[in-house]
Amino acid sequence: MTKALVAVTFGDASGIGPELVAKLLARPEALAAANIVLVGDAWVWAEGQRIAGTATAVKTIGSFAEARGGDGAPMLLELQTVAKADVTPSQVTVAAGKGARLALTACLDAVKGGQVDAVCFAPLNKQAMKKGGMAFEDELHFFADYFGVTDYFCEFNTLGTLWTSRISSHIPLADIPKYVTKDRIKAAARLTYKTLKKAGFANPRVAVAALNPHGGDGGTCGREEIDIIEPAARELNEEGLPILGPFPADTIFLKARDGALDSIVTMYHDQGQVAVKLLGFERGVTVAGGLPAPITTPAHGTAFDIAGQGKANAEAMTQALLLAAKMGGAHLT
Amino acid sequence: MTKALVAVTFGDASGIGPELVAKLLARPEALAAANIVLVGDAWVWAEGQRIAGTATAVKTIGSFAEARGGDGAPMLLELQTVAKADVTPSQVTVAAGKGARLALTACLDAVKGGQVDAVCFAPLNKQAMKKGGMAFEDELHFFADYFGVTDYFCEFNTLGTLWTSRISSHIPLADIPKYVTKDRIKAAARLTYKTLKKAGFANPRVAVAALNPHGGDGGTCGREEIDIIEPAARELNEEGLPILGPFPADTIFLKARDGALDSIVTMYHDQGQVAVKLLGFERGVTVAGGLPAPITTPAHGTAFDIAGQGKANAEAMTQALLLAAKMGGAHLT
Repeated sequence: MTKALVAVTFGDASGIGPELVAKLLARPEALAAANIVLVGDAWVWAEGQRIAGTATAVKTIGSFAEARGGDGAPMLLELQTVAKADVTPSQVTVAAGKGARLALTACLDAVKGGQVDAVCFAPLNKQAMKKGGMAFEDELHFFADYFGVTDYFCEFNTLGTLWTSRISSHIPLADIPKYVTKDRIKAAARLTYKTLKKAGFANPRVAVAALNPHGGDGGTCGREEIDIIEPAARELNEEGLPILGPFPADTIFLKARDGALDSIVTMYHDQGQVAVKLLGFERGVTVAGGLPAPITTPAHGTAFDIAGQGKANAEAMTQALLLAAKMGGAHLT
Repeated sequence: MTKALVAVTFGDASGIGPELVAKLLARPEALAAANIVLVGDAWVWAEGQRIAGTATAVKTIGSFAEARGGDGAPMLLELQTVAKADVTPSQVTVAAGKGARLALTACLDAVKGGQVDAVCFAPLNKQAMKKGGMAFEDELHFFADYFGVTDYFCEFNTLGTLWTSRISSHIPLADIPKYVTKDRIKAAARLTYKTLKKAGFANPRVAVAALNPHGGDGGTCGREEIDIIEPAARELNEEGLPILGPFPADTIFLKARDGALDSIVTMYHDQGQVAVKLLGFERGVTVAGGLPAPITTPAHGTAFDIAGQGKANAEAMTQALLLAAKMGGAHLT
């Protein structure tokens, strides 16, 4: 099987990203799973290796075009996105935010050109990204806009074998009911099913969560389950998608934890995130779904409180790379 | 220290209640913690012992007045609340619901008369309770009405050292924002603090949860934190109650799990219940707070699927009894 070519960025240079990438490249399973091209500044890579105490040789290349012809050794496509003098470790800076954005943009261009199969980025700082010129609420919307995506797209939070998506995200709780429409539920469930197939689930078991307590208790505390969510799930069944549910939010995660479900389409941010964080925040991976190529990142942030000390745990970063490699390689023979 | 006198009922006679009570009375730690008076039908007690395979001697008494003078051995105050012929195991029946209600009513009368210090009941079936004459949405409201409670009362979900309460419960998600008022938050937090004191926490660490994702993110996705929840918490601080928060819902339970909080005042049902169930549904205990005496019950239900087989786990029932004993004994010397 041909290995996927995965572009990896350092994320925010002020955070734990550089040291995570250094630790990642010291892991044999990462190098075995993908052809890796680091995309960013040579000094950031050197600094990451210094902090992590690693010494992985990389081959410096001049363009993405050279990356496909690599011999399997990790590569560095050197860009100049941020000057060392402009970065303050463990601080939000315009420079680090801009640098992270520029490196990602280069990767998105490579996706557009078919030059890489997937992207995996180390943690960003949202505030720095916005100060550094990202004109979107989050990187997912930045990516989707850059690719000109018009179909449904969403973020998946994954923990090993459990994937969650959501039909509404960073909005006030009071606005959630407006998002609970058959169209959104169906689009999210279809994308979830399709994305899990790409991630290697032969027969994804996807369920939709209810909105109201106890799933509305037969309509006595909310009617969205009867009027919207259940009909949407049954229409998906008629399309041939075996979507389950709706199941009450407070028990659906027990089913998932106990192995009866692979994925849950949640109705709102905290419905999923309370559970996902309790089930294993540290190993979580976030996947951008519905874009031209898989883009993954650890669920955790830049961890400014421990950045530069070499003690950041690279487990989620490694899982993010492995998932990008698996999904990015799905279309390769 | 004088032990509390705790009235224990069998709950719904069709479910696992009778066998749980039998197993409870076979546990030395239960008998050591409280003076126990079983309240209900002799045939239900016999049936529970038969199913559980236990043989604990109880002293039959004729009235609650005799219970205070007990010698420490468990007692049975025999009532005739339900006929054996009217009960179908593992089924919702009017008779079992009515029986459960009558036994509880006798206990509430005993609380009113100061004849018992606390009540602990085995699982009820809400549907059977309603069919059997309970004219309230749940037993908490039945109790509060029976006692004529006019102050704030609420249910606590407890898991060992973590207690959660909520300012809204079985209502549609769309109605939640209406319940997010300073008055409700302050009343719930005060009752939570006071109840934890009674349960033995010397300095309860109580926090309020935010309503919106990421706690509203500085007002960009919801303003209730800024306009209502934060001011309510600070006013409580001015009253001398060290209430913490608001903290975002998706990280507040991590703090609690890691031992930094004793209790969380949640804004809605699933915010707390998703977490509580993941953290350990089987050992959960529900406490009715704000009533004249502590009333506790296991968080789980009647488990009709396994009733009568002797395999029901009595751990939560035991924890419920121990908590009733502790709280009910707090005012005794």
